[in-house]
Amino acid sequence: MPHLPRLTRELRALLDARRVGALGTIGDDGAPLVSMVPFAVERQLGCLVVHVSDLAAHTRNLRARPRVSLLVTQADAAGESVLALPRASFDGRAGMLEPGSPAWRSCRAAYLARFPEAQPMTEFADFHLVAIEVTGARQVAGFGSARSLDAREVRLALVDAREPPG
Amino acid sequence: MPHLPRLTRELRALLDARRVGALGTIGDDGAPLVSMVPFAVERQLGCLVVHVSDLAAHTRNLRARPRVSLLVTQADAAGESVLALPRASFDGRAGMLEPGSPAWRSCRAAYLARFPEAQPMTEFADFHLVAIEVTGARQVAGFGSARSLDAREVRLALVDAREPPG
Repeated sequence: MPHLPRLTRELRALLDARRVGALGTIGDDGAPLVSMVPFAVERQLGCLVVHVSDLAAHTRNLRARPRVSLLVTQADAAGESVLALPRASFDGRAGMLEPGSPAWRSCRAAYLARFPEAQPMTEFADFHLVAIEVTGARQVAGFGSARSLDAREVRLALVDAREPPG
Repeated sequence: MPHLPRLTRELRALLDARRVGALGTIGDDGAPLVSMVPFAVERQLGCLVVHVSDLAAHTRNLRARPRVSLLVTQADAAGESVLALPRASFDGRAGMLEPGSPAWRSCRAAYLARFPEAQPMTEFADFHLVAIEVTGARQVAGFGSARSLDAREVRLALVDAREPPG
């Protein structure tokens, strides 16, 4: 999508290149918890999708306190400076998806396109698809290249534009 | 250290293999924030060390609310299941180190052993070395291989044992 700003294209590429993120939630005791989650991007609704188990602490946390953060970081390559690693922290609101609903179906399709091996688990009652509605982000694209994005700006990196904006 | 339990040896190896982690803090608005941080292990004190800038949101957050979480995840390899990725979430308490103090000196040495390029920044007044005292952890070593660790158990993975325990 050459009509998008360079940093937005880089953010899209980061989301395409990485399969796991670091999910931040808050526990009942008020302490932060960061846990690894596989994630996908649903590009019609423009949300992030994770698949969580009732056994996991982050599931209890995001049910009780839906504000979450998801960090996606480019793979660390030996010999390169870690400070310049491209990454983005997404602020969002997590919502459990109702099985069988249109949003559940499209988020499930996006998730299984990336993780087909998860298909059996999407049938289990104790696993849940969760949509993270992104409200903003902080992107570091390299040394001296960082920016904050509002919900509208992040959306450009998440949705599939049917036609060029403008 | 063959006298350590297998999962503890694997946790040590994970901390040796990875240079960056995902730091979870809580903002003034109560929302979680996950940001990428280079980290090192100080193996005499048995703490994690990060180096933060006054410009970063996580620095404001951990000054105001010292409880943090740090996730360290093994590198994702294409073709392997992401669910089995070895990783650990450390619960801890972040403390700014007083420049020139013995703890500052040993944590700085541990950090610079891993990131020699950070040396000039350790001289700047607006960068700070932070020790994370680990109070517990959740380790996932692979499919069906997970455990919770208390502070004493994590310590075995952090400190350099001078002699075998027992």
